[in-house]
Amino acid sequence: MSQKPSIPKGTRDFGQKEMAARNYIFDTVRSVFKSYGYAQIETPAMENLSTLLGKYGEEGDKLLYRILNSGDAFAGVDFDKPLAAQVCEKGLRYDLTVPFARFVVQHQGEISFPFKRFQIQPVWRADRPQKGRYREFYQCDVDAIGSRSQLCELELVQIVEKVFSLLDVRVCMHINNRKVLTGLAEVCGCPDKVVDITVAIDKLDKIGLEAVGEELRGKGLTEEALDVLRPVLLLSGPFEEKLAVMRKLMAPSAEGCRGLDELEELFGYIRSAGVQMPCELDLSLARGLNYYTGAIFEVKALDWQIGSICGGGRYDNLTGIFGLPDMSGVGVSFGADRIYDVLVGLEKFPAGLSSGADLLFANMGRDEVAYVLPVAAALRSEGIAVEVYPDSSKLKKQFDYCERKGIGFLSICGADELASGNIQIKNLASGEQKSFAKADVAGMVAFMR
Amino acid sequence: MSQKPSIPKGTRDFGQKEMAARNYIFDTVRSVFKSYGYAQIETPAMENLSTLLGKYGEEGDKLLYRILNSGDAFAGVDFDKPLAAQVCEKGLRYDLTVPFARFVVQHQGEISFPFKRFQIQPVWRADRPQKGRYREFYQCDVDAIGSRSQLCELELVQIVEKVFSLLDVRVCMHINNRKVLTGLAEVCGCPDKVVDITVAIDKLDKIGLEAVGEELRGKGLTEEALDVLRPVLLLSGPFEEKLAVMRKLMAPSAEGCRGLDELEELFGYIRSAGVQMPCELDLSLARGLNYYTGAIFEVKALDWQIGSICGGGRYDNLTGIFGLPDMSGVGVSFGADRIYDVLVGLEKFPAGLSSGADLLFANMGRDEVAYVLPVAAALRSEGIAVEVYPDSSKLKKQFDYCERKGIGFLSICGADELASGNIQIKNLASGEQKSFAKADVAGMVAFMR
Repeated sequence: MSQKPSIPKGTRDFGQKEMAARNYIFDTVRSVFKSYGYAQIETPAMENLSTLLGKYGEEGDKLLYRILNSGDAFAGVDFDKPLAAQVCEKGLRYDLTVPFARFVVQHQGEISFPFKRFQIQPVWRADRPQKGRYREFYQCDVDAIGSRSQLCELELVQIVEKVFSLLDVRVCMHINNRKVLTGLAEVCGCPDKVVDITVAIDKLDKIGLEAVGEELRGKGLTEEALDVLRPVLLLSGPFEEKLAVMRKLMAPSAEGCRGLDELEELFGYIRSAGVQMPCELDLSLARGLNYYTGAIFEVKALDWQIGSICGGGRYDNLTGIFGLPDMSGVGVSFGADRIYDVLVGLEKFPAGLSSGADLLFANMGRDEVAYVLPVAAALRSEGIAVEVYPDSSKLKKQFDYCERKGIGFLSICGADELASGNIQIKNLASGEQKSFAKADVAGMVAFMR
Repeated sequence: MSQKPSIPKGTRDFGQKEMAARNYIFDTVRSVFKSYGYAQIETPAMENLSTLLGKYGEEGDKLLYRILNSGDAFAGVDFDKPLAAQVCEKGLRYDLTVPFARFVVQHQGEISFPFKRFQIQPVWRADRPQKGRYREFYQCDVDAIGSRSQLCELELVQIVEKVFSLLDVRVCMHINNRKVLTGLAEVCGCPDKVVDITVAIDKLDKIGLEAVGEELRGKGLTEEALDVLRPVLLLSGPFEEKLAVMRKLMAPSAEGCRGLDELEELFGYIRSAGVQMPCELDLSLARGLNYYTGAIFEVKALDWQIGSICGGGRYDNLTGIFGLPDMSGVGVSFGADRIYDVLVGLEKFPAGLSSGADLLFANMGRDEVAYVLPVAAALRSEGIAVEVYPDSSKLKKQFDYCERKGIGFLSICGADELASGNIQIKNLASGEQKSFAKADVAGMVAFMR
């Protein structure tokens, strides 16, 4: 009968300590999202496969978890045709973006646009599990949809700054714009080489200017194109300097100029709003290239190597596939698992985060417990988390429980206390012990705060 | 390309208002659980089917959502054998109890017993959807495992009292004990008729003593058995009176006497701890009969008809099936959806729960926005939730947005304010309007609080 219990590969249990640490991250992003007027929504874990399929590319479709139809899924199935499509109508949420688009279209009549929403829920991907990659993980997405204003981008920059300032993690925000990348390829005379150019720029730090030129020649770029690109590869300094170089270069491309206008407006707002976090124009940034249409964001921790811990951008037609065209939106997603790793690595979790109760009443017998029960109730009403040990076990065992659970105060009330009408409380860290009249709840609270 | 979007039957989207209301319930139970030293855990949505199957009876197995194996699930399948078992290894969590048992066994080396945990997560059941019954819904479970003390039962009673007192819902807690039901059947001379007897007691209010007797005769109970039962059917008054009747009756059953001992101890603790919520010995209570071994709980709202809104009990061998015998535990589960319905019905949700931002800065143009951005940032640092309207649309449109989103304060800063260095803020409810120096953030905060 008995089985050795386990959980599916790539999934995790979260115990008390991990939960406290994860909730610290979730509570932080949630409080910041709310302070900017974003509204929380939740969507079902299961979506119709028709909603999910074709939205994440061919590779993504393979990574969707499909749910077997309930009842007899195989009744009436044609075994000569592909089976999965016949026996599964639903799949598990793969990200929060497509469900968000579906939500906006489905509920458009009830929504006040621009619609500012956030969503913190798990997603599932049938990826090969490996270090730091899971099959079930949480995403924290914040998006504004229904406005093309760069103020939406600014808000995301401010939100990123505030979140990581609260988490005490120094970060740099990398900012790019899809229209600038398009323009760059245009002015190089190779509008189909956007990806190759971006990849090459990204490698500059590692392989140097020579090798990058070589690589681009290999991709079919002409010497003229390389001459145009060279100043871009050598871009450095503050935003204004980079912009000046790009303005000259980009003049022939209307799309590229629009991208520079957007960047200039955004960086202007960033200055006006007093953003202190370093924000850097990074032309090598190309995440989600066939998806984003304007700003592209990526956030990196300055003191911990782990890749991007937050990223996003602007998309102009997310809801089009569900029948609602011309809805421009912009959003970022916070990577809770990586942020967790950064906070562990930099030892930035606040002390005492995972502690349970503040006070344990030892159990010295039935009468003694009856004596302390109303005191425990009164202390809880004052905001003290209190446990009463359920069994009158040996004191050693109760003390060990107290210690293992990190409970800071211990009260042992035996025959003496019952006789005198007192309550003993000991601060286990300092060793200080004090006696209170049973009714002096305020005194006990003060002693423990 | 375009599809009319929908979600699977029996699932729900939660918008801003519902989320605020649901979070109010979740935050309340969470705060109470924590004040008693319970630790939050989370388990994966997907469990191995070997963990889930056979735990919920034959009917439950049918209601499990199975997940198609990733990759080519049908490769190498024997089409002459049942297919579902060959192509699905994982299923969605059906409740929080079995994953909890699995968790305890899997992590027993890291756990300090008695282990007090709570868990608030969705579960999935392929039930026929109907009013108030969903295929995805949240459970809020709180359990203590590893102690047989009735103090664990008491804590659950206190937790129930505190939760519903915070939610401002008057409730009655019905309490029974499985051992008493067993004993009752024993002293009637029909130890196999526990269910029939309980069902009959339950019907007493509706059909009367005569009809109940008739029904029990039909189930094969003798006149002697009915004579024994009659005083039980007529039980009334406070716990002590009921107990006295039961004590006499139950003398021949050792198991029944143990059950009465447990009840007496629990009701004694309830008195000692100063519990004010009505707690009633209810011998008709039989939920989860083949599962619970001691206390059985059910909570009903006094002012709203909806059935049980919270329930649970003690189980002596939950973890046995996973190889860890003799772990006694007790827990209750709060039904978030029903509690939600009660709070809606009784209009008990606090006012202003779902409001988004406190203040909207209207957008009067790029310079005007640049002027208010640092003020918006400063106000957010003081805990005011602030939106800046992203587009310089017509004021009417911005005002409508403000109103529809229930934002209480509106600031319109145009050329005059820029010239004078002031910030205008209007209280939309009272109509009061005030002008502040741009630096007087404290004054603005005071005006809005």
